[in-house]
Amino acid sequence: MSKTNLMTAPVEGELADLANFTCSLAATAASVTRSYFRKPIDVIQKLDNSPVTIADRECETRLREMITERYPEHGILGEEHGFDGAELSEIWVVDPIDGTKSFISGLPLYGTLIAYARDQDVQIGAISMPELEEFWVGVKGKGCFFNGVPCRTSDCKSLEDAILMTTSVEYFSPENRANFNKLSEKTRIRRYGGDCYIYAMVASGWADLAIETGLQSYDYMALVPVIEEAGGVITDWSGNRPDLNSNGTIIAAATKELHQQALSFLGG
Amino acid sequence: MSKTNLMTAPVEGELADLANFTCSLAATAASVTRSYFRKPIDVIQKLDNSPVTIADRECETRLREMITERYPEHGILGEEHGFDGAELSEIWVVDPIDGTKSFISGLPLYGTLIAYARDQDVQIGAISMPELEEFWVGVKGKGCFFNGVPCRTSDCKSLEDAILMTTSVEYFSPENRANFNKLSEKTRIRRYGGDCYIYAMVASGWADLAIETGLQSYDYMALVPVIEEAGGVITDWSGNRPDLNSNGTIIAAATKELHQQALSFLGG
Repeated sequence: MSKTNLMTAPVEGELADLANFTCSLAATAASVTRSYFRKPIDVIQKLDNSPVTIADRECETRLREMITERYPEHGILGEEHGFDGAELSEIWVVDPIDGTKSFISGLPLYGTLIAYARDQDVQIGAISMPELEEFWVGVKGKGCFFNGVPCRTSDCKSLEDAILMTTSVEYFSPENRANFNKLSEKTRIRRYGGDCYIYAMVASGWADLAIETGLQSYDYMALVPVIEEAGGVITDWSGNRPDLNSNGTIIAAATKELHQQALSFLGG
Repeated sequence: MSKTNLMTAPVEGELADLANFTCSLAATAASVTRSYFRKPIDVIQKLDNSPVTIADRECETRLREMITERYPEHGILGEEHGFDGAELSEIWVVDPIDGTKSFISGLPLYGTLIAYARDQDVQIGAISMPELEEFWVGVKGKGCFFNGVPCRTSDCKSLEDAILMTTSVEYFSPENRANFNKLSEKTRIRRYGGDCYIYAMVASGWADLAIETGLQSYDYMALVPVIEEAGGVITDWSGNRPDLNSNGTIIAAATKELHQQALSFLGG
């Protein structure tokens, strides 16, 4: 049995169709990105110097086509092709390849992020790891599922017991870095690298804390239902629930106690 | 077909038996570590505070039993249980779980490292990624193989074109960190995290440069035949081929030109 069958959202009710469609988007994205992974392809440098691949663009184009066909009345925000229908109440936020550096350096740690929001309230989020064949989806009020099975954050309540993950302190401003370092020293274990995958680790209870800054809305919107529905807390560094207009600082914690402790170091 | 069958060293001649045995050790290690991965187990803190799991110890015990039974005249050096037979000419160097932080935080990026050395000359090295079902083995004079297929480093010859990987600058001394940062700024892409896996990426030509410091002999010995037999260059930061007594600084490069450029920043 292919593990692709585990890309499901076993929920019923109002959001079920949207959740199933989220899974379909993730499956399509995986088929595109996997066909390019570890293959020699041109790497195009965007103006802002972040690497982006042909796979990234082709994938987003496919996802946009699927969304427009199924839900023509919904808006779409993506990393590669901007925001169509920003004025609409229902929108999809997609990042075909989160972790482009991983992708182009052969590390199977890139992910696809898909979020669905209604009136600024993000209600469905999916983290798909195509190479690892691992899939998390959070559906508002229904729970978070890892490969079709409910998952939960850990019960870690203190920094001293916490496993902390961040992608790289390279991305932090000097002030944020200083605050982060003070917090980091209090934790039990620190682990670097991972992009969106670190939030999946928190959702499944293997890690306890994920902290980043400099994220774009397509990087963090999908994480919100995943963490919240797994029982954790996710906010910006000021303690506010992330929405499309957040400043890109993110802290995801296994419990509200851990979240509160971590936030106190970050100026929140 | 299980991908475990791809854990092979398709070589003939004098080293074939030893290479096949290396594969057997890796397969056994994988069966042990996989049985513990993402399971709730006690994490024991060693005196030096690095995390180590029950899986790590059980795995090394099994590997030592296998080596002692098959090659009673060989010495064994492992992370968990020290050095038996250091005076012998043929020795095995094993690290059951390289990337313990990854292991205990649920990231499938830990590896098993196995090396065979004769008269201080490391001749066989294996990097096994049990969760990813990916396996690299280098055999002196025979080549490097990724899941049974020959692999080669890239032809990247300059820092400006290079994808650089390191596990974390957290492990660098201030002086080493300053030198590393100067070098790092010259590269095209920097990616953090990965432990032994970053050397496998270099061996397969997906990344071009891997640089670390603070490694122990069981962390780096296996990397040497993998990188060399894939066509790359691996030395310490002084430009010497690593042996059991090296200082734990490591630089692995796709080509000798890239190696030379990188080394010039690191005091070599």
